[in-house]
Amino acid sequence: MKNQRVVLASRPAAEATVQNFRLETVETPPLAEGQVLVRNHWLSLDPYMRMRMNDMKSYAPPVAVGAVMVGGTAGEVVESRHAEFRAGDAVVAQGGWQEASVLDATQKGVVRKVDTSRVPLSAYLGAVGMPGVTAWVGLTHFIEPKAGETIVVDAASGAVGGIVGQLAKARGCRAVGLAGGPDKCAYVKEELGFDACIDYKAHRDFASLAAALDAAAPNGVDGLFENVGGLLLDVVLSRMNAFGRIALCGMISGYDGAPMPISNPRLLLTQRLKLQGFIVSEHMPLWPQALKELAEGVGSGRLKYRETIAQGLANAPEALLGLLKGRNFGKQLVKLA
Amino acid sequence: MKNQRVVLASRPAAEATVQNFRLETVETPPLAEGQVLVRNHWLSLDPYMRMRMNDMKSYAPPVAVGAVMVGGTAGEVVESRHAEFRAGDAVVAQGGWQEASVLDATQKGVVRKVDTSRVPLSAYLGAVGMPGVTAWVGLTHFIEPKAGETIVVDAASGAVGGIVGQLAKARGCRAVGLAGGPDKCAYVKEELGFDACIDYKAHRDFASLAAALDAAAPNGVDGLFENVGGLLLDVVLSRMNAFGRIALCGMISGYDGAPMPISNPRLLLTQRLKLQGFIVSEHMPLWPQALKELAEGVGSGRLKYRETIAQGLANAPEALLGLLKGRNFGKQLVKLA
Repeated sequence: MKNQRVVLASRPAAEATVQNFRLETVETPPLAEGQVLVRNHWLSLDPYMRMRMNDMKSYAPPVAVGAVMVGGTAGEVVESRHAEFRAGDAVVAQGGWQEASVLDATQKGVVRKVDTSRVPLSAYLGAVGMPGVTAWVGLTHFIEPKAGETIVVDAASGAVGGIVGQLAKARGCRAVGLAGGPDKCAYVKEELGFDACIDYKAHRDFASLAAALDAAAPNGVDGLFENVGGLLLDVVLSRMNAFGRIALCGMISGYDGAPMPISNPRLLLTQRLKLQGFIVSEHMPLWPQALKELAEGVGSGRLKYRETIAQGLANAPEALLGLLKGRNFGKQLVKLA
Repeated sequence: MKNQRVVLASRPAAEATVQNFRLETVETPPLAEGQVLVRNHWLSLDPYMRMRMNDMKSYAPPVAVGAVMVGGTAGEVVESRHAEFRAGDAVVAQGGWQEASVLDATQKGVVRKVDTSRVPLSAYLGAVGMPGVTAWVGLTHFIEPKAGETIVVDAASGAVGGIVGQLAKARGCRAVGLAGGPDKCAYVKEELGFDACIDYKAHRDFASLAAALDAAAPNGVDGLFENVGGLLLDVVLSRMNAFGRIALCGMISGYDGAPMPISNPRLLLTQRLKLQGFIVSEHMPLWPQALKELAEGVGSGRLKYRETIAQGLANAPEALLGLLKGRNFGKQLVKLA
C-alpha cells in the first residue's frame, strides 16, 4: 500500500518551522506474523511532539532526524496477521504521522480495539484518549480535589484543560480556566460550564492577570493543573492557598526554547505546596478507571469537547506549529482519510 | 525579675541590619495561675527568623514592630504556678529573644520538660529539637530515601543539613553535601561522614558547580533536601534522576529579598519530580518518632553536630545576620546564662 508520511527533516534551532518536516511517499512493507496494517483516519497533534523534536534530556528519546514523527492515530485495520484483529476493526495506536502503519500487535498496548457505537472514533484521540486520561490522572490522582475547593487550569479550551474543568465541576469544585481570546473563554464558560474563564491575552503583565484571577477565584487557588508555565504559572502560584497542589503536565510556553523561570519559588515553601510533574503513560493502572468515566461522559453527552481538524497529512506541520501558538480550538486533529 | 530582651525596632528595607533590632530591659510581670517563669540559658537562631521580620504573606504572621523577636529557648524554671512544673526543671519553649520568659504552661506544647541526663540542654534546640526534626521529617516523610539512592543537602554543615546527611547514610544512601568553604566541607566529610561535600564558594557559576556535582554524585540525584535555593537549587535540579523528590525546607538565599527564580522548571516535568514545601511544626504526629531516633543518636554519640555560640543577648542580632550569610558553623546559639 502507498503510504504518505512525515519525517523529521532537521532539528529546530529555536522556534520550529515547517522546514523541519518533510513529506515522503513509500510503500508499506509486507506483514510479518503478528503484525497488522492499519489505515489511519485520524492523527492526533499534541504539544509533547515539539519536545521530541529536540535532542535533549527528557522522559522520552528524541525523534531521530529522518524518522517518522511520533503521534497517536485512530483508524481501521486493513490486513491482519494477528488472531485478535481482523479487517474493519476500529483501532487506536501510536501510528505516527503517516497514512498507513504496520504495527506489532503481539506487544501489549501497541494497538487497541475501540468501540465506536457510542463514542466517535476521533474522541479516542481526545476526551476518551490520552488527553482525557491526562486530565483525569492529574486532577484525581495528584490534585485530589475536595468539594468546595477552587481548581485552576490553563489552556482551558484545549483537549486536556477542557476535561480538567468539567471533571472538577463534577466533583463539586469551583473551576476557573485560562484561555486565549474571548471566543475560547465564552466556550469554556458557556459550553464547558466552568465557573469563570480569564482571557490571558487581555492581561499581559503580572498585576493585570493577578487582578483578573482575584476576581475569578476570590477564595484563592487550591489546585492548579498546569499546561503552560511562564507568567501564567507565576500568577497562579502567587494566589495558591496553603497546602495547595500543582499537577505539572506541560510547559507549552517553553517548548520552543524560550526560558520561563518560576520567579518566586519561595511561595512553594511559604504556602507548603506540593508540585508533581507527571507523564500519563507512566500511570497505566489508572487508565481503565479513567477511560470508564470519560467514555460514559462522552457517550451520555455530559462531557463536552471540541475538535479543530486539519485536512490531510501535508497540513500536519503547520497545524502543530499553530497548536504551539494556541491557534487551535479544542483537540487538534489531522484528518487522513 | 529584671529581663533583657530584643525587640524588632523596624522592618528591613532589603538586607536586615543590626539597626532593625533594639535591646530593652524590663521587669517580668508577676505570674498568673498556670504560668511558669523560665530563666533562658540558650536562644536558638534560625533562618526562618529573617522571614518573620518582613510584613509579607507566609506561613506565620510577621513579628510586630516593637514586639519581642520570636525564637526557641532552653532554660530552667525559676518559679511555677503550674502543678507539672517546679523550680529547677529543664525546659524548652518558644521563649523569644529574652533572658526570662513568662509562659502559659496550660497550653499544650508551649513549654516542654526535657531530660538532660544523656543529651545536653542546648541540643534540644538543635539535633534533638526543631532543626533535627526538620531534617528527619523532610528526609523520611517527603524524600523517602531508598538504600543505594543519592541524597543531596545544601547548608550541609548546618543544624538541619548535618543531620539530613547522617540520617541518609544510616539508611544506606550516598550522602552529598554542599557547604561554604574548605573547613566546613572537611567537617561534613570527616566528622559527619558524608560521602562527598562540595564547597559551593569555589564554584560560583552553573557549569563549575554542575561539574563538581557530577563528580560527587556520579549516578545523579534521587533526593534533594533544599535549604538554600537560587543557583544551588538550579544546579541540583539539572542533575535529578527521574521520579526524584525535593523536600523544600528553606530558601535562605532569598530571605533578604534577593530574587532567586528557578531557571528551568521544565525539568520538574521532564524528570517527573515531586517537590514539597513543608514546615515542621505542621507535622506534630511525626515528632515523637523523630525525637526518639535523634535522642538515641545524640545520646550514643553516633549522631554528631557542632555549635557556634554567641555570648549574651546583645550579640544576637549580629549572630543572626551572620547566620544568614553562612558565617556560623553548625547550630547557631546565643548563650544567655
